[in-house]
Amino acid sequence: MNHDARQTLPPQHPLASGLTGQSRLVRAYRGDRPEVTPVWFMRQAGRSLPEYRELRVGTKMLDACLDPALASEITLQPVRRHGVDAGIFFSDIVVPLKLVGVEVEIVAGRGPVMGKAVRTAADVAELTALDPAVLDAALAPISDAVARTVAALAEIAPRHRVAGEPASVTPLIGFAGAPFTLAAYLVEGGPSKDHLAARALMHSAPEAWADLMRWSAEVTGRFLRAQVLAGASAAQLFDSWAGALSLEDYETHVAPASAHALSFVRDLGYYEPVGDAAADPERVWRSVPIVHFGVGTSELLGAMHAIGADVVGVDYRLALDEGIRRLGGTVPVQGNVDPALLGAPWPVLEAHVLDVLRRGDAAPSHVLNLGHGVPPDTDPEVLSRIVELVHGR
Amino acid sequence: MNHDARQTLPPQHPLASGLTGQSRLVRAYRGDRPEVTPVWFMRQAGRSLPEYRELRVGTKMLDACLDPALASEITLQPVRRHGVDAGIFFSDIVVPLKLVGVEVEIVAGRGPVMGKAVRTAADVAELTALDPAVLDAALAPISDAVARTVAALAEIAPRHRVAGEPASVTPLIGFAGAPFTLAAYLVEGGPSKDHLAARALMHSAPEAWADLMRWSAEVTGRFLRAQVLAGASAAQLFDSWAGALSLEDYETHVAPASAHALSFVRDLGYYEPVGDAAADPERVWRSVPIVHFGVGTSELLGAMHAIGADVVGVDYRLALDEGIRRLGGTVPVQGNVDPALLGAPWPVLEAHVLDVLRRGDAAPSHVLNLGHGVPPDTDPEVLSRIVELVHGR
Repeated sequence: MNHDARQTLPPQHPLASGLTGQSRLVRAYRGDRPEVTPVWFMRQAGRSLPEYRELRVGTKMLDACLDPALASEITLQPVRRHGVDAGIFFSDIVVPLKLVGVEVEIVAGRGPVMGKAVRTAADVAELTALDPAVLDAALAPISDAVARTVAALAEIAPRHRVAGEPASVTPLIGFAGAPFTLAAYLVEGGPSKDHLAARALMHSAPEAWADLMRWSAEVTGRFLRAQVLAGASAAQLFDSWAGALSLEDYETHVAPASAHALSFVRDLGYYEPVGDAAADPERVWRSVPIVHFGVGTSELLGAMHAIGADVVGVDYRLALDEGIRRLGGTVPVQGNVDPALLGAPWPVLEAHVLDVLRRGDAAPSHVLNLGHGVPPDTDPEVLSRIVELVHGR
Repeated sequence: MNHDARQTLPPQHPLASGLTGQSRLVRAYRGDRPEVTPVWFMRQAGRSLPEYRELRVGTKMLDACLDPALASEITLQPVRRHGVDAGIFFSDIVVPLKLVGVEVEIVAGRGPVMGKAVRTAADVAELTALDPAVLDAALAPISDAVARTVAALAEIAPRHRVAGEPASVTPLIGFAGAPFTLAAYLVEGGPSKDHLAARALMHSAPEAWADLMRWSAEVTGRFLRAQVLAGASAAQLFDSWAGALSLEDYETHVAPASAHALSFVRDLGYYEPVGDAAADPERVWRSVPIVHFGVGTSELLGAMHAIGADVVGVDYRLALDEGIRRLGGTVPVQGNVDPALLGAPWPVLEAHVLDVLRRGDAAPSHVLNLGHGVPPDTDPEVLSRIVELVHGR
C-alpha cells in the first residue's frame, strides 16, 4: 500500500461532509483554541459504567468487540451519560491480532493471553507469515460498528453548547495499540511487569525484532485505517508499555515501527473550502488528526511526537505545563487528570482539574483527559461532574 | 530517639575497626575513585542461584529471612560465587512490618500480601497504634544474621585484587524499603500496578497519609539501623514504587518520610585517623554511606538525593550519563545495566556493560550494578562474567 499520496475520505465521512470538522475536539486537535476546552476520558467506554456491565453479561470481551451493535452501543453509552466531546471506539488492541489469525483471548482480571509466546527468530518468522492484508476483509465488523456509531452520534444532540460555537456533531476517535505494545504481548505471551522477554529479543535478535515490529505496525495500522475510513474523525495510537523503555531503545527499536503504523492513516484527509463557498473558494487539505499516548512516557514525549503525531497525550506523572515545555510549546496536548484523584473529595478533585486546565493554557490547545484510563471502580457521577466543570469554566 | 547528634559505631564494627572503610565499595560510595570500579547486583542474593533454591526448599520466604543462619548463608552465596564487591543483606522490606505485628505473608509469584488493607483514617490509626519501638527487641534475628554474615565475610578472601589496593574485606550493605513502598503495600493490601488506592489516600486524607508515612518511616528506619549497628558498612533504601508518583507528589507526600527513615542511620559513623597514627593523628568523622534507589525514577533523581542520600541508584531506563547530569555531576551513582540484556549474546551484553562503565566516568564515582533486580531466570555464569569484565577493565 502506498500512503505517500493523499487519499481523500469518502464524501459521506463526518469530516468530509462537514459534520465534525468544526467540533471542539477536532479544532483543538488541530491546534485551534475552541470556545470551550473539550473533554473525554480514556477508557470511558466500558468497565466503570453499570449500563456497560449489564450489556456485557454473558459476552466475552473479544466477542463484544466483534459484535457491531454491541461495540457501537458501548461506545455511545458514555457520550449519552457524561456529555463528553468525543466517543472513543470500544475495542481492544489485540482485536486485529485475533482477526489476522493469532490465537488470543482476554482473561478477566489479567488481560490478553496468547496461545503461544513468540520468543525466537523462528517464532517471529512463523507469526509474520500471517498476511496482514487479510485484515482488509476481516475488519468488516469493526467498520460496521464504527459506521453505526457515527450514524448514532449524529442523532445525539451535543450538550453544553455555548453561544458562538459552530454547529457540530460529536466526533468518534479511532483507537489502536502501538506496535511495541502488541509485540510485548506477543513475546511475553501475556501481560508482564518488566517486558523482559520482549526487551531481550529486541537486543538479542534485532533483525527478528524489526520484522516483528514491522508486522505489528501493519496489523495495527490497518485496524486504525479501517476505523477512520468507516467514519472516525481522529485516531489515537496507544502505547501501553512504552514506559518500560529507555529513550534510546525507543528511538532505535520502536519509533520507526510506530511511524510505520501511523503511515496507514497519515495520508487520509479531505479538502475543506476556505473563503466564499458560493464563488470559487480555495480549498485546504485537512488530514485526520492523530493523537499518541503512552503510560509513563515523560522521557519520550518528543520522540512520540516526532513519529508523525499531531497531539501528544501526557501521563499523570508529569506536570502538564512541563510536558508542554518538553514538546517545545507548539504541540497540542491531551491529559492529564490523575485517576487516583477520582475518588477524592470533590473540592480536592475540582482544584486538581482546574490546575490541569490552567497548566494546559501553555499549549496551543488542550483536550482535557485523564493521565491514564478510568479505573473500574470510578463513580460515573464524578466523570459527569468533571465534564460540567470543564465546560462551565 | 534523637538522631541529631553523631553516634559512634561500636569499635568492633567493620567500618570502625578498619576492615571495610578502604574497600572499593565504601570508597566509591564516598566519592573516591578506587583502582577498580566496584560491582554488585541488586537481588544477587536469592532467586537466580541454584544453591539458594536448594537451601530454600521447605522454608517460607519470611521464615528464611528470620532464620539467622539461613539469611546469612543466602547473603554469602553470591559473594563466594561471583566475587562481587559487596554482600547485600538477604531480607525483605516487609520483615519489619511482620515484626511490629502486621499480618503479612509473601505469596510465591505474587509478593507481599497483607491480612488487611489500610484504606481509611481509622485503619491508619489502628495500624499506627503498633509501637515501632518494639522492633528494637524484635529485630534480634536480623542483628544476629548480620553479625554472622559480617564475621563470615571477613574470612572470604576478596578476589580480583590489583596492585596498590588497600587491604580490605568485602563489606555488607544493609537494606530496607522506603516508606512509600511500605505504605503502598499496606494500603493496597498487596502488589499493585498503579497504586491507585495508596495515591488516592494521599490526596483524600493527607493527614492520615502523613501519619502512615511517619510510622512506616520509623518502622523501616529502625530495621535499617539495626543492620548497620550489627555490622553493615553501607545502607540502601529501596523505593520499589516511587516511579508511580509525579515529582510534586513525591516531594510533598513522600520525600519527608524517606528523609525521616534515613535519619535512623544518618547519625551513625566513626572517627577515622588521618595522618600519622603513631603521633597525635587528626580524626575525621565518617558517616555510614547511604544509597537510594527506586524503579522508574528518572524524573525524581534530584529529590531522591536531596533526602539525605550519598549515592543515587539509576534505573535502566535512563542513560547513566544523563542521570549523572541530572544530579549535577557531583553525586556518586550506582547502576544501570539493563537486566533484559543478561540473556543476550555475550558480545551484546559486553558492549552494553562497557558502555555503562564509560558513561559512569562522568560521575565522581560509580558502582556498577543493574538498573533493576536480577531476573529469576538469569544464568549465574553471566553475572560472574560481568564481574570479571568490570574488574579486568
